[in-house]
Amino acid sequence: MTNHSIALIPGDGIGTEVLPAAREVLDSIGTRHGITFTYERYDWSCERYLRHGSMMPEDGLERLRRHDAILLGAVGYPGVPDHVSLWGLLIPIRRAFSQYVNLRPIRVFDGLPSPVRAAVTGEVDFVVVRENTEGEYSEIGGRMNRGLPGEMAVQQAVFTRAGVTRLLDYAFGLAERRGGPLTSATKSNGIVHTMPFWDELVAERGAAHPAVEWNQEHIDALAAKFVLDPARFDVVVASNLFGDILSDLAAAVAGGIGIAPSANLNPEGEHPSMFEPVHGSAPDIAGQGIANPIGAIWSAAMMLDHLGHPGAAAEITDAIARVLATTPVRTRDLGGSASTAEFTAEILRHL
Amino acid sequence: MTNHSIALIPGDGIGTEVLPAAREVLDSIGTRHGITFTYERYDWSCERYLRHGSMMPEDGLERLRRHDAILLGAVGYPGVPDHVSLWGLLIPIRRAFSQYVNLRPIRVFDGLPSPVRAAVTGEVDFVVVRENTEGEYSEIGGRMNRGLPGEMAVQQAVFTRAGVTRLLDYAFGLAERRGGPLTSATKSNGIVHTMPFWDELVAERGAAHPAVEWNQEHIDALAAKFVLDPARFDVVVASNLFGDILSDLAAAVAGGIGIAPSANLNPEGEHPSMFEPVHGSAPDIAGQGIANPIGAIWSAAMMLDHLGHPGAAAEITDAIARVLATTPVRTRDLGGSASTAEFTAEILRHL
Ligand SMILES: CC(C)[C@H](C(=O)O)[C@@H](O)C(=O)O
Ligand SMILES: CC(C)[C@H](C(=O)O)[C@@H](O)C(=O)O
Repeated sequence: MTNHSIALIPGDGIGTEVLPAAREVLDSIGTRHGITFTYERYDWSCERYLRHGSMMPEDGLERLRRHDAILLGAVGYPGVPDHVSLWGLLIPIRRAFSQYVNLRPIRVFDGLPSPVRAAVTGEVDFVVVRENTEGEYSEIGGRMNRGLPGEMAVQQAVFTRAGVTRLLDYAFGLAERRGGPLTSATKSNGIVHTMPFWDELVAERGAAHPAVEWNQEHIDALAAKFVLDPARFDVVVASNLFGDILSDLAAAVAGGIGIAPSANLNPEGEHPSMFEPVHGSAPDIAGQGIANPIGAIWSAAMMLDHLGHPGAAAEITDAIARVLATTPVRTRDLGGSASTAEFTAEILRHL
Repeated sequence: MTNHSIALIPGDGIGTEVLPAAREVLDSIGTRHGITFTYERYDWSCERYLRHGSMMPEDGLERLRRHDAILLGAVGYPGVPDHVSLWGLLIPIRRAFSQYVNLRPIRVFDGLPSPVRAAVTGEVDFVVVRENTEGEYSEIGGRMNRGLPGEMAVQQAVFTRAGVTRLLDYAFGLAERRGGPLTSATKSNGIVHTMPFWDELVAERGAAHPAVEWNQEHIDALAAKFVLDPARFDVVVASNLFGDILSDLAAAVAGGIGIAPSANLNPEGEHPSMFEPVHGSAPDIAGQGIANPIGAIWSAAMMLDHLGHPGAAAEITDAIARVLATTPVRTRDLGGSASTAEFTAEILRHL
């Protein structure tokens, strides 16, 4: 009997609706595989911010550190500026726990039509490996001459050899295991200091992983190819910002943001990793019980995989695939009318 | 009789093949409208760089300044690093002549199937208004500890009130003329200094243009919506980098990079503006005479419009639309077998 201690942070909006769905699926699969979970629930959220003035308590990170993994719903609330909510919770967690790999798998499931023309898609099954702790997301910068004609704001992007190299080694290692090519997202024609550096490091790590075929594409052309020929990709490695854009784009190409999962990994396991659906808190549909739970459930599967249970994880993604391929049960974002609970029940039946 | 003095910079690769096509169309339409053109051809290119060590001569910008407009093909050549070729020609021109608006119209033409599912597209006809002289494309930054474990590179993004405001006023003015909504691309949740500033300025200029309905979207979600629902957009305003990504993405959604045009505008007309297809030099197909000339021809139409001949410009885009809607003539990138010359001849027949 293995027990895992899981921190649950439902967050805001539909985050609080999809996380219970993920938990039900975890409990069910755990029963069959002899895995138990001890959950601790943290109500850290924008609501908390509005009441207490901070997204999480002072010792928030210390409390999370005790857990084996973190499952997060979504953060964001009308009236709370996004940079407050994100930099008060999500981004500090990613950084404090060196979750330097943000992994975002993309699959076009049977039964879930991709918006891109059937003619151009073969099998779409790839993964975006996004740098998650540095790059374009940086606290360095500021503003001067506020309100005056000469007002300006600057923002520093920071790329370190250590930070990029560890990410690239993870990505090349993944490409080795998957046996596919690696594509690096760059923009070294326009961003002339950091991106040529990124390219050099890619070439360096590429030489250290001779089994992997790799190439690079400028982010603008790459975004176009995600639409025109998504089946050509296997592992796409990208900076923090580029990975953010590409993974949402890829999720749309694959049929919707509601199904996309993500893992914020500390691959060495020195700190807890965090798993969260890519969708946000969706205030427009919150409270109606109609959110799509696939992103959260698939994220829970990635958590199981990370915790050493790849078989149990695969059973969950197989159940998702079977429900989509063999039943008409869909939540509203996918054109159906099933509630979150009904869709989750269908997944449980197919486990 | 109006005469315009045009600087032609064919550049590299297929740039040298599509510019003559654009010129033929200009001459033909000019004859019918009593407009003449005096062309001066500049062989500034990566080839020149390889021979002479620079993309253009020292007095290059001074020479261009004498012209009414600049028509550029494409720049880029294997072996010449992109940041050398671009920062040695394209980007200095954009900046020296305060071409602070990069205008990229997107249309799904009848007869040119968009790769996105028919079901989700209504009429797709919008324009990306990209900031073109500051932002994420900046010379400020550098590298330290070269080759050492502590190596790092930094890159400063710079947003000024003056630079953003003039761009926004152009975009809001365009939305007023078009009568559609304006969407601002942001990322104020992740990029915490410059993007909240951008948002504030958008709100400020929005208040100054009360006739325009506007909203903002984070770049990741916006990229997804370009695929899922491109018909909802009319004017999309974006920073230098975001506009670069969005416009290539939109061109892919509209059916291919080969047809996309762009205008680098100095709206006040104090300096020459520059017009160029969005596609690059495409070394893989260069020299075969099979490049798609639509991007270049449409760019020439935008030039005519800017020079005060909107009627003549519309005749060119109408001819493009008619050839695509009523004939099977297509270049290879669009699934046909017509050469650049054959396709151009078809356009001329439909003028
Ligand atoms: C070549 C490159 C520097 C350029 C840009 O990013 O501006 C190009 O992609 C474009 O869009 O004109
Ligand atoms: C909310 C935002 C800061 C975040 C990001 O950009 O990292 C989100 O878009 C994501 O992808 O997890």
